[in-house]
Amino acid sequence: MGINYRQGELARSYVELVERKGLGHPDSIIDGIMEEISKELCKEYLNVFDVILHHNVDKGLIVGGEASVEFGGGTIEKPAEIFMAGRAVYEADGKSINVEGIAMDAARKYLESNFRHLNVDKQTILLPKIRRGSADLISIFKMKGEIPLANDTSFGTGFAPYSDLESLVLEIERRINSPEYKKKNPHIGEDVKVMGVREGDRIRITVAAAFVSKYINDLGHYIELKEKALSEIKALISKAYDGEFEAYLNTGDDYKNNSVYITKTGLSIESGDDGEVGRGNRACGLITPYRKMSLEAVAGKNPVNHVGKIYNVLAHELARDIVRQYDFVESATFTIVSQIGSPINEPKSADLEVVLSKGYEFENAKPKLKYIVNAWMENITEITERIIYGKSSIF
Amino acid sequence: MGINYRQGELARSYVELVERKGLGHPDSIIDGIMEEISKELCKEYLNVFDVILHHNVDKGLIVGGEASVEFGGGTIEKPAEIFMAGRAVYEADGKSINVEGIAMDAARKYLESNFRHLNVDKQTILLPKIRRGSADLISIFKMKGEIPLANDTSFGTGFAPYSDLESLVLEIERRINSPEYKKKNPHIGEDVKVMGVREGDRIRITVAAAFVSKYINDLGHYIELKEKALSEIKALISKAYDGEFEAYLNTGDDYKNNSVYITKTGLSIESGDDGEVGRGNRACGLITPYRKMSLEAVAGKNPVNHVGKIYNVLAHELARDIVRQYDFVESATFTIVSQIGSPINEPKSADLEVVLSKGYEFENAKPKLKYIVNAWMENITEITERIIYGKSSIF
Amino acid sequence: MGINYRQGELARSYVELVERKGLGHPDSIIDGIMEEISKELCKEYLNVFDVILHHNVDKGLIVGGEASVEFGGGTIEKPAEIFMAGRAVYEADGKSINVEGIAMDAARKYLESNFRHLNVDKQTILLPKIRRGSADLISIFKMKGEIPLANDTSFGTGFAPYSDLESLVLEIERRINSPEYKKKNPHIGEDVKVMGVREGDRIRITVAAAFVSKYINDLGHYIELKEKALSEIKALISKAYDGEFEAYLNTGDDYKNNSVYITKTGLSIESGDDGEVGRGNRACGLITPYRKMSLEAVAGKNPVNHVGKIYNVLAHELARDIVRQYDFVESATFTIVSQIGSPINEPKSADLEVVLSKGYEFENAKPKLKYIVNAWMENITEITERIIYGKSSIF
Amino acid sequence: MGINYRQGELARSYVELVERKGLGHPDSIIDGIMEEISKELCKEYLNVFDVILHHNVDKGLIVGGEASVEFGGGTIEKPAEIFMAGRAVYEADGKSINVEGIAMDAARKYLESNFRHLNVDKQTILLPKIRRGSADLISIFKMKGEIPLANDTSFGTGFAPYSDLESLVLEIERRINSPEYKKKNPHIGEDVKVMGVREGDRIRITVAAAFVSKYINDLGHYIELKEKALSEIKALISKAYDGEFEAYLNTGDDYKNNSVYITKTGLSIESGDDGEVGRGNRACGLITPYRKMSLEAVAGKNPVNHVGKIYNVLAHELARDIVRQYDFVESATFTIVSQIGSPINEPKSADLEVVLSKGYEFENAKPKLKYIVNAWMENITEITERIIYGKSSIF
Repeated sequence: MGINYRQGELARSYVELVERKGLGHPDSIIDGIMEEISKELCKEYLNVFDVILHHNVDKGLIVGGEASVEFGGGTIEKPAEIFMAGRAVYEADGKSINVEGIAMDAARKYLESNFRHLNVDKQTILLPKIRRGSADLISIFKMKGEIPLANDTSFGTGFAPYSDLESLVLEIERRINSPEYKKKNPHIGEDVKVMGVREGDRIRITVAAAFVSKYINDLGHYIELKEKALSEIKALISKAYDGEFEAYLNTGDDYKNNSVYITKTGLSIESGDDGEVGRGNRACGLITPYRKMSLEAVAGKNPVNHVGKIYNVLAHELARDIVRQYDFVESATFTIVSQIGSPINEPKSADLEVVLSKGYEFENAKPKLKYIVNAWMENITEITERIIYGKSSIF
Repeated sequence: MGINYRQGELARSYVELVERKGLGHPDSIIDGIMEEISKELCKEYLNVFDVILHHNVDKGLIVGGEASVEFGGGTIEKPAEIFMAGRAVYEADGKSINVEGIAMDAARKYLESNFRHLNVDKQTILLPKIRRGSADLISIFKMKGEIPLANDTSFGTGFAPYSDLESLVLEIERRINSPEYKKKNPHIGEDVKVMGVREGDRIRITVAAAFVSKYINDLGHYIELKEKALSEIKALISKAYDGEFEAYLNTGDDYKNNSVYITKTGLSIESGDDGEVGRGNRACGLITPYRKMSLEAVAGKNPVNHVGKIYNVLAHELARDIVRQYDFVESATFTIVSQIGSPINEPKSADLEVVLSKGYEFENAKPKLKYIVNAWMENITEITERIIYGKSSIF
Repeated sequence: MGINYRQGELARSYVELVERKGLGHPDSIIDGIMEEISKELCKEYLNVFDVILHHNVDKGLIVGGEASVEFGGGTIEKPAEIFMAGRAVYEADGKSINVEGIAMDAARKYLESNFRHLNVDKQTILLPKIRRGSADLISIFKMKGEIPLANDTSFGTGFAPYSDLESLVLEIERRINSPEYKKKNPHIGEDVKVMGVREGDRIRITVAAAFVSKYINDLGHYIELKEKALSEIKALISKAYDGEFEAYLNTGDDYKNNSVYITKTGLSIESGDDGEVGRGNRACGLITPYRKMSLEAVAGKNPVNHVGKIYNVLAHELARDIVRQYDFVESATFTIVSQIGSPINEPKSADLEVVLSKGYEFENAKPKLKYIVNAWMENITEITERIIYGKSSIF
Repeated sequence: MGINYRQGELARSYVELVERKGLGHPDSIIDGIMEEISKELCKEYLNVFDVILHHNVDKGLIVGGEASVEFGGGTIEKPAEIFMAGRAVYEADGKSINVEGIAMDAARKYLESNFRHLNVDKQTILLPKIRRGSADLISIFKMKGEIPLANDTSFGTGFAPYSDLESLVLEIERRINSPEYKKKNPHIGEDVKVMGVREGDRIRITVAAAFVSKYINDLGHYIELKEKALSEIKALISKAYDGEFEAYLNTGDDYKNNSVYITKTGLSIESGDDGEVGRGNRACGLITPYRKMSLEAVAGKNPVNHVGKIYNVLAHELARDIVRQYDFVESATFTIVSQIGSPINEPKSADLEVVLSKGYEFENAKPKLKYIVNAWMENITEITERIIYGKSSIF
């Protein structure tokens, strides 16, 4: 393999579309759960076997519940069902672990610590469906020593920096779901979705945010709180963005029919919205159809030899690192394809495309870029640790 | 209807067989869970609607898990699945309750408070399957005022007092599962089954009790603890029973193959033993094939108009009351058949058979018996309250 | 062990209660399915391994569906869920079988061949939950050669002949569910329940039978067909029974509210009625609370060493054989208790009670009774074959 | 809205990556099932209500089974579980349909007609999880008359023609899964995955194809058949592609350990491979990370107002139409963003980018392009019919 280094040119399409499914969106919830399960399995494997054993829990499904919600309260009538699927090694060397118990426990803790208004015991049904995996893959999983072998032919890609629109979309969701914001605005739930469209320099931000019924007295109160929230969103945008913009919140509301976006739990899974792993944000935290994207579900894959996970995380970290370290790099996009059965630091192909500051010579840049790329490839197993200990975000 | 009063004669069959499935037996666990759910639903209905609404949750299934257990410990490899079925009113008068949430919560609390070594979160999967019932049955459910109408043509029976063998079987299980015993013997689990056989005056008691692996160091230790437990059982029997007896504990053990009855949780549901509602103890706490028995599952039925429940509980309470109050009654058996659609205090037929002390005239006894029977029939709705508040045991 | 032979006396209680849950009753459906699964597993084990391997599938649950039914038709809105639980050996000697596939297939065929109006594909969900059983029990399962060892301490009982009331109850259900009757009366479904009560010589028969909506035009038509059916039932009773009687059909109907017992499939499982294995008829085909009864679920247990099954079937066959062969025997009741771990033809205790024709000497009868009992005990493994090949009915 | 028309320039990245998950890949199987369910629901709604009612069944999960496979045969040990989720209207105007029954039936028929070696009854468990949807969305669903309103803010994109690599990848899978090929090569299953990588002009095709064990006698036989299959693939490539290429088949095989890619059913779902809706091919039948892609799951969405489905299908059809009709267009890419709540033929923005033949003036092209675009937009509801009747492929 050789890594290909290329100079790109500044290009900005006339239209740009960016979406973020927030922490409480059904697809993100199940991404979060399955990733948490993978992390907890890693820790338990290390604890019991001193090595991470094979697992892949990158499949999951939330079947939404049923609720009847009204201003001031409401009732959950059917809990949401959360199916957690995949496979994992149950036993090796005469020792075994409670894979599905760990899964349920990780799911519970993840839900409890992220969603204030959800009563996990009474409002969700946890359904592990994790089959026994074969233990004879152990040899490729030694964490220290040799480099693991790629489990598949797979593709990862990452870029830096975020465009203005991307930054905005990300920032809005993060703000609304930040602890400080929640403290001041307990009536806004975690199911937040932000969509941004740019045409030329004009952007349009549409936010959908589930309100929490017990804090809302009536329609008037809802409208008041919604207008307040929208003006904060607008303030945030105008602070960060110079161009023209529009912003909207909960456009599906129908005041005439008294139909507005309120929920009991702050989550739309309470009444029928379903979710699946791998259908939401890419590893950069966004859905960016105008950029190169990998379709791989990153959440739930094991962080040792699942290149569909490692390469996507690596590509983003590497691109960010380059942009952070070298002022002369305007933007970087890293793309990498694995070679099934080869060490993960020996991809089949890899490609770094950079846009340089005006006047900066590509030939001067190249050795510096190589230096960083090589460093990441040599220390590729650090990605595994970054993932397990939550240092790299993955959705 | 008239109630039939009859004098029976002292009869003791040559053989007698009695069984008690203890608190932690798979059938008893699911009985206990479904009964608890019914009780919690009753309370919630009273709370929200001021009246107990229709429900019937007398179906449930435990699919045992998988475990690998060894002296000193072991691992649960698959949690047990607990299916909770039936139907219940979800909404009425524009208000609704979270039926399945209440079910899961009741199950969890029941399991946690009864089984010390079970980790509900990691070792069980709770699966509510409770369909929406129709609310138009409300009228027959008013708790105050009129008497509810029988939901079915059904049969209940009860007796007092317990025979010597019955008392023994019951007492042994209750002792082993008492808090004091558990404190002294934490190594003995809740899955205890006691079987008693009497031939003539000779009885034979066989106990199966799951030991808890973490307290048992090795086979020698197990044998030591088992012998101690057995000698306590024998002491208990000889204190209570004058005749000849034999007693056995965990007869399935096979020391040669190192195969003994140890579990991680004190429960056999951890590794493949399944359970179903209504397959275990009758309302008297025992299985007594040599006596008249009702096949009705008592657990989980609603205590307002489900005569399959109410009549079995009533019959035992009534028989016990008679024996308690009148020294001249040696034994009483009450049998009662409902009339579907008629008030539950107007059964289709009822029959009280008593054995009187030698020389006591039946004609003298009859008015006294009638007095008690009438009192119970007039206050039949107290049975409902006794059940909801746990004053009458039902399995 | 010795078998105890005793002479009983003619006794008829003043009240008698008998019930039969017909072929299409929820409890009977799941009994039928699980028994069929056991039979098909037996055949497959014999086919693949030349010996019946360990299995026990005596747990099952039907969670009723939802339907909206009207004269002339209706719609199933939620299929019924059929859970099939237990455990079975999946593999031995390097060969394996598809236990759950066999289970689903057996269930499907059983349902299709017994319930004309049920569309299995669209109106039921088949959910196998059969865990892997251990193969190290093989040795006790050799079909030829040695006698299998009892799996448990268990109790079986059987009697002959049926009382008048028992015969009637049985015959009515069988008639209504016979092919000839169904041909003439396609509008009567398979969910038929017959309850008989006798007080003195007076009997009262109550039948509940699900009508099939597509054959019923309107309320008038329903009433007409119901009256016709009831008069046939009455004719059948008066032909068979000399005493006074009453008979009722579908007493829950409420003509004023247009609410009558019609179904789309002829089965109440279509709309919310649940069923469980072992909650319906005993091995004699009836529920007989005034007789000695075993609580064991017979359906689904393996017919090789599960004494809870074999002894109940044996007891009935043996009692029937005695009554059939000896005119001088008025009635026979056989009761048998196993010895866990002992050959199944060496029970812990057994008891034959007979009522003899007036004047017949018990001492003359005894050797003849012994002869038959011994023959059955010596050929006890024939019970296994009778069960597998459907020659002994079990519910 | 205005549609934006732009001229692009011929651009070919140095690297190109293309993947097709064939008909029998787990993700494609569940895509196929859920799409079939949507189609059957549409037909039933039209049949019963004369209008397509609201539904969205774009969530589904296959939990792979367990199998032990060997040359010449093997056994399925656990059926695969197929969860079918989403929501749909069950009833309206006093009429109702059996949503889950239709779902199970559609799934069964789809599986049976596409996968020759799969026994649906014994090797799959069908688990519908489709909740009741609200019927008050009917008004926007009238098929004739007005244009439906977009259900969401969503994005679709499509292009034409396929690149050389794309054509090849698509053609190889289609060939291997064609009836003619299967007739000649019954030993090759439907689970076929094709991955193509191009670096410069050099391409590399990697095929994974599940062989069917019963046709394979031993390792030697497997190798022979595999070499034959590979040489056919190579012949197909060299016929279609002039440049240099490599081709590989089943690169995971390990002859030394006798471990090769054989299955009993021709499908990897038989032993643990899981699948999810929307994780596989885009509407063009391929995964093309180097092109603009929509992350929307197209399968299972309703074809009336779910723009995430309609716009992706529309974009491909439109681009293909342009390329087909106008020789002067080298390639076309259509991108379209909906406006939630607006008629689906009034998108928020749309963008057609074309590459024209050398020398062809964009201004000459523009009116012709507009003509086609307008025709499609005016007749946008034809897309609905194309989808229902299977004229537009969607994965």
